[in-house]
Amino acid sequence: MVYIYTFIEVDKNIKNDSLSDFMNEMTFIPHAFGYQCNNPGAVCSDRITGDFELICIVGGESRITIDSTLYICSAGDAVLIPPFTMHKIQTPASNPHENYWIHFDLNPFHMQKNFITAILGDTGNKLHPGLTKELLALYQLLENEYQCERSGRMHFVSSILVQIIIEVLRLKNSPSLTKNTIISMHPSEAEIVRKSLDFIQDNLLSPIVLANIANYLHISESYLFKSFSVIMQMPPNQFIQFVKMKKAEQLLKSTHHSIKEISEMLGFSSPYYFSNVYKK
Amino acid sequence: MVYIYTFIEVDKNIKNDSLSDFMNEMTFIPHAFGYQCNNPGAVCSDRITGDFELICIVGGESRITIDSTLYICSAGDAVLIPPFTMHKIQTPASNPHENYWIHFDLNPFHMQKNFITAILGDTGNKLHPGLTKELLALYQLLENEYQCERSGRMHFVSSILVQIIIEVLRLKNSPSLTKNTIISMHPSEAEIVRKSLDFIQDNLLSPIVLANIANYLHISESYLFKSFSVIMQMPPNQFIQFVKMKKAEQLLKSTHHSIKEISEMLGFSSPYYFSNVYKK
Repeated sequence: MVYIYTFIEVDKNIKNDSLSDFMNEMTFIPHAFGYQCNNPGAVCSDRITGDFELICIVGGESRITIDSTLYICSAGDAVLIPPFTMHKIQTPASNPHENYWIHFDLNPFHMQKNFITAILGDTGNKLHPGLTKELLALYQLLENEYQCERSGRMHFVSSILVQIIIEVLRLKNSPSLTKNTIISMHPSEAEIVRKSLDFIQDNLLSPIVLANIANYLHISESYLFKSFSVIMQMPPNQFIQFVKMKKAEQLLKSTHHSIKEISEMLGFSSPYYFSNVYKK
Repeated sequence: MVYIYTFIEVDKNIKNDSLSDFMNEMTFIPHAFGYQCNNPGAVCSDRITGDFELICIVGGESRITIDSTLYICSAGDAVLIPPFTMHKIQTPASNPHENYWIHFDLNPFHMQKNFITAILGDTGNKLHPGLTKELLALYQLLENEYQCERSGRMHFVSSILVQIIIEVLRLKNSPSLTKNTIISMHPSEAEIVRKSLDFIQDNLLSPIVLANIANYLHISESYLFKSFSVIMQMPPNQFIQFVKMKKAEQLLKSTHHSIKEISEMLGFSSPYYFSNVYKK
């Protein structure tokens, strides 16, 4: 068999870079998007959600309290609210804010902490990407894509969110930062975490303590604690709480059980854990 | 411990859809991008590459021959050239084409055939998405992003490519098509293919025949052939050829071996397999 052709090796004029590598590690699942304006004196009282929320202020004044810290924000500021973080959003009647907000999930879970550090560094929850024409163009594209409810919308919105995040990270000049935040994993530790996650998922309706998982994996509690904390950037008990709250959120939506019943089903230690739960 | 807050379950105003599900299955790795114009009488002779190439014609006339079929293309047409497909691109001196072209890889491999079917259906390699303002805006964004060589470029370009593909699939009105093209996999067949891929990867520098893999997996050749062909949408021998050519491409780039040496290293059955290889 003789082929008569030229085998071209394409000159790769698009090369890899560390920020692309970092972004490659993560998937963003957008849940909700909106543009808020003309709502003088609006208040979102103290609340938590299970999602990330990125708010980009384009006009007026926004007073956002996150974990007891008040951030006074104006055009060009942005805030990132991580999942299960208590926050309150207010705007003065005299100077109402205009903002774009987007709620999303980030997978895999172990990259959440890396992501937060890359975006926020150590400056609290507020950042100042500015109102660049690139960022505004992306928000306008997002608004348009959101409004025209065409097929592929979720994936398209996800790709715009990726672009917004890249722009924000560029404006923060953070490629060096992103490098530092990448956690290296040892294969055996990764395996421990993988099995722990399966165990937690399978036993979500029981009270789970560290000893249960350690016994199941035939390892010591201290080794489990260390491996888990290194990879997940969060101690196991905090993670279990997190997953149970995610599950509670889901059960509240999909069933008619009361808060008290769900609290009992998930083996929450204290009936006061949710003091007040609203179902939309 | 008593928390005083409102637990908000975010109203998910962005819902999933079948085109998003389809796109979620794939990752696009852009290799090269360009805008060609003012090149009257240009010819790319018969050639193959290891990449996908998507060409979007925005002006003039393009004469593109793919696997012996000539497509006469004008503004609003596009062509998709799958990997390792012989093609030739010409444009008349009197009416030179203007086009955007992008070379990319698509992972995972078993989705390549699905992708080709979704984009092309059964109309050959040419399609007519038209020159909509959305598509042109995306190509202009792509040109701008490509030229400003900022960090995160590769991932940003990849996200624009995703958006272009969603637009093309929308214009083809193909959400129903994409549903039909998704191949369902049986877990044991998927496992056979996974192990076959590992075996092929590990033995790339030897001649590999079906019997080698079947013996390694302790299954019959016919079962291997069937499972592989169903999932990969390509018989194993064709796939092995494909991977070897990819490897050859890589070796040509990264080493100083001659074509004949590489042909021998990879155990190609015929020294005529590559008749003519250019190294850029």
